[in-house]
Amino acid sequence: MTTQSPVVQLLLTGNEIMSGDTVDSNSAMIARRLSEIALGVYRKITVGDDPELLKTELRAMADASDVVIINGGLGPTIDDLTAEILAAVAGVPLREHPEAVAHLETWCAARNLQLNAANRKQAMLPEGASIVDNPIGSAVGFAMQLGQCQVICTPGVPSELAAMLDAIVTDLGAQLEQPAERSILRLQTFGLGESTAQQIISDAGGQWPGEVDLGFRAGAPQMEIKLTVENHAALPAQQRCRALLEELFGDHIIGEGDTQLAERVLQLLQQQGSTLTTAESCTGGLIASMLTRVPGSSQCFHAGFVTYSNTIKESVLGVQRGTLEQHGAVSEEVVLEMAEGALQRASADYAIAVSGIAGPDGGSDEKPVGTVWLAWGQQGQLRTRCLHWPVERSLFQTMIAAAGLDMIRRTLLGIDEEPRYFVQRSAR
Amino acid sequence: MTTQSPVVQLLLTGNEIMSGDTVDSNSAMIARRLSEIALGVYRKITVGDDPELLKTELRAMADASDVVIINGGLGPTIDDLTAEILAAVAGVPLREHPEAVAHLETWCAARNLQLNAANRKQAMLPEGASIVDNPIGSAVGFAMQLGQCQVICTPGVPSELAAMLDAIVTDLGAQLEQPAERSILRLQTFGLGESTAQQIISDAGGQWPGEVDLGFRAGAPQMEIKLTVENHAALPAQQRCRALLEELFGDHIIGEGDTQLAERVLQLLQQQGSTLTTAESCTGGLIASMLTRVPGSSQCFHAGFVTYSNTIKESVLGVQRGTLEQHGAVSEEVVLEMAEGALQRASADYAIAVSGIAGPDGGSDEKPVGTVWLAWGQQGQLRTRCLHWPVERSLFQTMIAAAGLDMIRRTLLGIDEEPRYFVQRSAR
Repeated sequence: MTTQSPVVQLLLTGNEIMSGDTVDSNSAMIARRLSEIALGVYRKITVGDDPELLKTELRAMADASDVVIINGGLGPTIDDLTAEILAAVAGVPLREHPEAVAHLETWCAARNLQLNAANRKQAMLPEGASIVDNPIGSAVGFAMQLGQCQVICTPGVPSELAAMLDAIVTDLGAQLEQPAERSILRLQTFGLGESTAQQIISDAGGQWPGEVDLGFRAGAPQMEIKLTVENHAALPAQQRCRALLEELFGDHIIGEGDTQLAERVLQLLQQQGSTLTTAESCTGGLIASMLTRVPGSSQCFHAGFVTYSNTIKESVLGVQRGTLEQHGAVSEEVVLEMAEGALQRASADYAIAVSGIAGPDGGSDEKPVGTVWLAWGQQGQLRTRCLHWPVERSLFQTMIAAAGLDMIRRTLLGIDEEPRYFVQRSAR
Repeated sequence: MTTQSPVVQLLLTGNEIMSGDTVDSNSAMIARRLSEIALGVYRKITVGDDPELLKTELRAMADASDVVIINGGLGPTIDDLTAEILAAVAGVPLREHPEAVAHLETWCAARNLQLNAANRKQAMLPEGASIVDNPIGSAVGFAMQLGQCQVICTPGVPSELAAMLDAIVTDLGAQLEQPAERSILRLQTFGLGESTAQQIISDAGGQWPGEVDLGFRAGAPQMEIKLTVENHAALPAQQRCRALLEELFGDHIIGEGDTQLAERVLQLLQQQGSTLTTAESCTGGLIASMLTRVPGSSQCFHAGFVTYSNTIKESVLGVQRGTLEQHGAVSEEVVLEMAEGALQRASADYAIAVSGIAGPDGGSDEKPVGTVWLAWGQQGQLRTRCLHWPVERSLFQTMIAAAGLDMIRRTLLGIDEEPRYFVQRSAR
């Protein structure tokens, strides 16, 4: 294997990817992880579960690459062909691999499952292959040389692939002796769009240093900003760019690395020894769910209320019937009473309350689909805002749940300034 | 162009896809739309914005295909290379295309924009290309013959691609005179693994008809089983396979097409004019959130309770302190009282209550991480079960939330038989 810019190619298999039933996010995950050791992906090919085509592609790829990563086809079913194809191209038989059998036995035992014939197929690997441990799934990965090329076979289940990539990236980094000078700094933001962010940077004027690569990854609800430099000499420039971004986007930056809003909120609550409760109508439990996904959330989040109907807003949270009748469920008065009711019933320090119209039905001229009232803060210091965020139901719930968490983050940090999305998404 | 099974390939370009900063969902969109006219995608290749590599791939693809769809590289910037590359491979010059200029002028005028040089670049197309209208964006698509192959160039912006695909699919369908005979039947299941399903089918013996393609798509929480046939003559065989699957997996099948568990539960509740409430500890609002993602869920789901701490289980749901002290929060007695409290407070007909140890911490020898008690049903007819599902926190929450919904589905359907996962995941 050469040590100068090795050629890496990806071979992705699966009828469900070719048919469009599944969107392939695995190859993006592999590419992002490889970029940590400064490896780029030169080319990727995707084909269905067609043995002859897979063999032809694998042969041609291996001839032209230093590393080929195959993704998919490691499962227990008959359309999982990867081991068979690699064995055929290498000209070796499939053999039951003792380590893979041991892995399967442990895996099944931990789950009170019987090791069946279909599972056992997953231990049949090309002779000479070494296994790549799968910490969470039944299928082990495996690797072997094909001429000058290293072929690494990985599972199609994204969580299993993610769990396996640590070992693969470390191992490749060591083998390739890649000068590990690349440094990637990732900032997580909420409430900024890609084009707005780009525009703000341009408007700031000044020269963006050529050695710092600026990238955006827009997701829902967060957007990631990525600053990549290729060598140590560029580290000061990377830090200057980071400082510039902090100046420009300041309180829209949630944190570094993979920091999620809910994680950051729980961290701040824990630092202050405070607790949070939720009173959700249109987000329907999503805020609570985002919080409780985070390990250890039980320390600061004890209770959440999903109050969809008016009757329940009254009986569970103590919202006044008169308030509901006079102002309607989607109103400042009602979210305030929801927040107050939740604070009291949960004996919590902070609350988020949300009431809005997620759609597709239920809108009116006065309160169209996408209208939402938020209340947040502490007893006696609750604040409110009406936003209009007219997007598809599920995205609406995601963005509004995140906005609620973001307002608690801002409150906990003592940020008084309004976020940009308050202006952009203001209901008036 | 042949009328028998034409070969379609996709060529995707863009550095942001190769780096993993963007997940490519366009090729899935193209594949799904082509499947409407029974066209499958044979192979796809993805490369960065590298002109020489793009030319090589395009030449090879065009030689081996009836249709090549190129996606990406139509924008106004210098790394948008598609027109240039197609012209080079075809051996023709780039020319300003009058229809494309007219489109740009109209597009800019509607937005009060000045037609600039960068935009004008988008009207420079290979001589002889015909344009594909872009109803929403500035970049037109275009198509031309390369030998026997039709090359169609489409934009990378997903909404623009979507808007353009109607015309492309209609046009291809007419040209190819494809007999639209493919029929795909998808069944959604819960509580079956891929290997178990495969094993059960094998164990059933009998010959699986060769003309019915059997596919599995394992997701969390559901697994999809797909039966594909290529012509009308195979439809009876497809129905026989469906009947076999119903016999083998029966009540593990949730529904057809894209049916989600929460959707199915809400549909059954609505048919019976009943309501459901949730009392969640370890799933932390996820069951409520899964239900409220579904439009119209407010008809049958009015209230949900997230009761993480013991104090809240007492104050909000009326669980007895004595029960908590004697049996612990993760116990049959406590989930029963949680369900009863929720039923009463929400005035609901059915309840799901969950209390368990999601991890990574909080387990003990007696109740290890992954232990969970479920209660479900109507007042006076509540049933309970303890499961042990030791997977990563977020997957645990997903699977347990789905199991709770599944038990309500089974109750509403009057299914008495225990699901397979009760046996496999039973805690002792």
